[in-house]
Amino acid sequence: MSHGYRVGDYLLDRIAEFGVKDVFGVPGDYNLAFMDIIDEHDSLRWVGTANELNASYAADAYARARGLSAMVTTYGVGELSAINGTAGSFAEFAPVLHIVGAPKTTLQKEHGVLHHSLGDGDFDHFYEMARHVTVAQAKLTAQNAAAEIDRVLREVVLESRPGYIMLPADVAEAEIYRPAGPLQGIERSSSPDALDAFQRAARKQLKDSSVTILADLIVDRLGATEELHSLIENTEVPYSTCAWGKSLVDESSPRFAGIYAGAASQERARKAVEEADTLVKIGVIFNDSITAGFTDNIDPERVISIDSGVATVGDVMFAPIAMRDAITALKEIAAEEPWTPQPLDELPEPEATDVDPNAPLTQDELWNHVAAGCTRGQTVIADQGTSFYGIAPHSLPTDSLFIGQPQWGSIGYTLPATLGACLARPDQRTVLLIGDGSAQLTLQELGTMLRLGLTPFIILVNNDGYTVERAIRGPEKGYNDIQPYNWQKVLEAFGGTEDQCLTLRAETLSELREALQTATDTQDKLVLLEVCTERLDYPPLLQALAESAK
Amino acid sequence: MSHGYRVGDYLLDRIAEFGVKDVFGVPGDYNLAFMDIIDEHDSLRWVGTANELNASYAADAYARARGLSAMVTTYGVGELSAINGTAGSFAEFAPVLHIVGAPKTTLQKEHGVLHHSLGDGDFDHFYEMARHVTVAQAKLTAQNAAAEIDRVLREVVLESRPGYIMLPADVAEAEIYRPAGPLQGIERSSSPDALDAFQRAARKQLKDSSVTILADLIVDRLGATEELHSLIENTEVPYSTCAWGKSLVDESSPRFAGIYAGAASQERARKAVEEADTLVKIGVIFNDSITAGFTDNIDPERVISIDSGVATVGDVMFAPIAMRDAITALKEIAAEEPWTPQPLDELPEPEATDVDPNAPLTQDELWNHVAAGCTRGQTVIADQGTSFYGIAPHSLPTDSLFIGQPQWGSIGYTLPATLGACLARPDQRTVLLIGDGSAQLTLQELGTMLRLGLTPFIILVNNDGYTVERAIRGPEKGYNDIQPYNWQKVLEAFGGTEDQCLTLRAETLSELREALQTATDTQDKLVLLEVCTERLDYPPLLQALAESAK
Repeated sequence: MSHGYRVGDYLLDRIAEFGVKDVFGVPGDYNLAFMDIIDEHDSLRWVGTANELNASYAADAYARARGLSAMVTTYGVGELSAINGTAGSFAEFAPVLHIVGAPKTTLQKEHGVLHHSLGDGDFDHFYEMARHVTVAQAKLTAQNAAAEIDRVLREVVLESRPGYIMLPADVAEAEIYRPAGPLQGIERSSSPDALDAFQRAARKQLKDSSVTILADLIVDRLGATEELHSLIENTEVPYSTCAWGKSLVDESSPRFAGIYAGAASQERARKAVEEADTLVKIGVIFNDSITAGFTDNIDPERVISIDSGVATVGDVMFAPIAMRDAITALKEIAAEEPWTPQPLDELPEPEATDVDPNAPLTQDELWNHVAAGCTRGQTVIADQGTSFYGIAPHSLPTDSLFIGQPQWGSIGYTLPATLGACLARPDQRTVLLIGDGSAQLTLQELGTMLRLGLTPFIILVNNDGYTVERAIRGPEKGYNDIQPYNWQKVLEAFGGTEDQCLTLRAETLSELREALQTATDTQDKLVLLEVCTERLDYPPLLQALAESAK
Repeated sequence: MSHGYRVGDYLLDRIAEFGVKDVFGVPGDYNLAFMDIIDEHDSLRWVGTANELNASYAADAYARARGLSAMVTTYGVGELSAINGTAGSFAEFAPVLHIVGAPKTTLQKEHGVLHHSLGDGDFDHFYEMARHVTVAQAKLTAQNAAAEIDRVLREVVLESRPGYIMLPADVAEAEIYRPAGPLQGIERSSSPDALDAFQRAARKQLKDSSVTILADLIVDRLGATEELHSLIENTEVPYSTCAWGKSLVDESSPRFAGIYAGAASQERARKAVEEADTLVKIGVIFNDSITAGFTDNIDPERVISIDSGVATVGDVMFAPIAMRDAITALKEIAAEEPWTPQPLDELPEPEATDVDPNAPLTQDELWNHVAAGCTRGQTVIADQGTSFYGIAPHSLPTDSLFIGQPQWGSIGYTLPATLGACLARPDQRTVLLIGDGSAQLTLQELGTMLRLGLTPFIILVNNDGYTVERAIRGPEKGYNDIQPYNWQKVLEAFGGTEDQCLTLRAETLSELREALQTATDTQDKLVLLEVCTERLDYPPLLQALAESAK
């Protein structure tokens, strides 16, 4: 064959099949051959980030919003810089394909002391490391490329977790046949018998029973969101999510009970979830940080649970069942006989607050106003510190996409994630909520956002260090202090011009209100709003979690 | 026992035995108990960095300068962010002890879905990943702590490579007996018979033979530098190093033949190394980047080689022999009968250059003047791009410490390494040579330097992107472009005041001269000099390497 179609083309075409438009990463000598192939691709755009960890974070957010993303790094130095982000994608079920440009096959076979290797002639170390944090891995050769690309991509999509492809420089350019058609085998299926048995057991459990639905992240990750929404629309029962899956359901509805967080839940949500005769639990994984240290209190006997590939009623398990099919089975039951809603407390009256608009701003006021300022459809990203715990209890408008990281909890994640989200959802503004302690880890991605002309609204809470840690231990210890940046100058330093960006600052409620309005009026620029709060002012949910962590 | 002496104290006291004064890292909830113990330690200072990768780079440089360093991160997110730096320490033989604060033992045993874990209840994943890039690993318990700390530290020191300790929060605070005395078993030893046989064979090889010494990095890492210097002083033969071990020997001596770089060597160095009847090769590992793609051309039959634990004469191997002992054995031979120096070409006359001092600056002029401006004893750090290849061929003054990374080659390494070097060698100014492409990966450590009042001289070559990659492929491709920062504003953005720092800029030779002088006159501030060169202007050594990489 000599048709000019290469392994690199095949790989990119497969990725593009899933609606991916942008490829993240950092060039390096072992991936430059592939970089040229990306450069020539019709529909994919290269998005170079300032470093590889940031690429992995950007790709993670892009995958959450679009269902797949791709990242390219170079061998050794590049891939290992990104591996924390990949581990996060694994822990948080984000389907990111990590493509690593590697030394030529012939060089690897000579076992030489090549740069970017450990120098021991063994080129499998990083592949072996990646096995721990990816669901599928492949070392491509010209011979195995088509089958291996398809296998890895299939696993990534089916499990909604990252995959790893080692692409030696020569293999990227090797010729290959075009795929015969779209990637096959990416539909999840159920055993009809198991599904039928599940439906019978669920029908029995639901009869004469008050019901609440608690759904979470995995619904989104397994592509069952539409089915969940349809189930909710076809019942009258209250529903809730955990903070992990925040924005999965419409939080503006009166049927939304609020975020369930174990003993740290608002009472309305806690009662709805814990006191229903039957809890329909869909795609929920409890961890310590979303349950204030495993303070969830739910009797498993009264739970119908739908998880990845399996459904249970009480302690009886039915498998294999695809999540979508199980949800649809429940909808059919509800169509037969309407479910009895678990009674839901009235929404608490907003506390009458008598705040001096010119007094120093509190975390409480901050998150109230930030939440109130969010508009329909926005992407809202919160770093795993005061920002996450501050915004999580507040309801977001319809069609919002919320991105947090309560399982992996890698501080700094959200700033590059904002880059990814801006590109994945270009028609919706991305709102980033982040602290000064988190932002310092990854702030160079501000430069990339400026370079690409992106226009997120970044609310940076400057509270003088690691406040999330002060809540847990050492509130006054030096190890929780950081260098105070001059945030008013940061965008300028990264090359931002007045045409591209705007920096604001608020120390009081009155200044915050004005700044939020200005940001809303400035949709065509990157807006960085520095908000100052006290270093020992913690949101209530964080306080509860911190107590449980002690 | 109830004496208040804890596992954390034991670990820190052991580290302090080796002259370590600073511990690098980032706090996180799983290491906060240990952070308090560090905070209480008499002689160790906590140095919080902006992120974990940067901590690992800083610790790497500190270890190079002091013989050991320590880094503390939190479980999962922290340790994986640092793992690229640890891999670099492995590849480059830097003895860094990585201490990871982990969930309490009881929590690990419950296999729960804890934050910062992959969520599968398996807490060994990251330990297993670390095995690939460290020489020794331990999971501490209250019972095994003393023995395991000693074992890991011993291996780290003996092999001059990183080690990994998982320290659960409860174990850090568990009580333990104090060490009975200093760490034992850290001396390398030789078999007297092997040593004697080696000496006899070497004597025979050296007789009636012209000799050159080629020494490199491993001499430093195995603590044999003093013996090497003594050997050199007790002979009259020429000597050389590779770029990896640059500054190992006095480069200001007329006997210094220059840097050996295979076919890319300056002719004087190439002839000295390749044409001597006997080449005494000590602590040398050839890789692709220091030999312009394995273009070294040395007949193994005429080589006496001293490596880690082993020495060879021609193809005969003698072991176990400590490097120090082998070098001393050679010195004894030289004392018996002086070695015949391999004739050394005259130093080439500096080319008469007729440069317009107001024309745009070239890479050639830049490195000539930077090298000329270096003074005795300084730490000179060069990033693995144009900076490394630009400065490498230039001789540095006596007692310089040069830090580069030609094996691992992780761009961005040197900026945090500068932090580590400033702290490790506080009485000597650190000079950093870095490009704009590299600096963007890790620039937040400028903030940490400002916070600690450090005063390095940073020469930042602004040549508009990844010039080292342009040299290899895609000189005009967009993937080698980056966001242009406003480097004149960067220190201010990181909170630097006029009392603490000074930013300069040079576009011409005349401006460079003036700036170098200003920097020399400003020893009490961090000085950032932005130097502008053309994006396609490559140093000659890089050009040669790039050709070999194609």
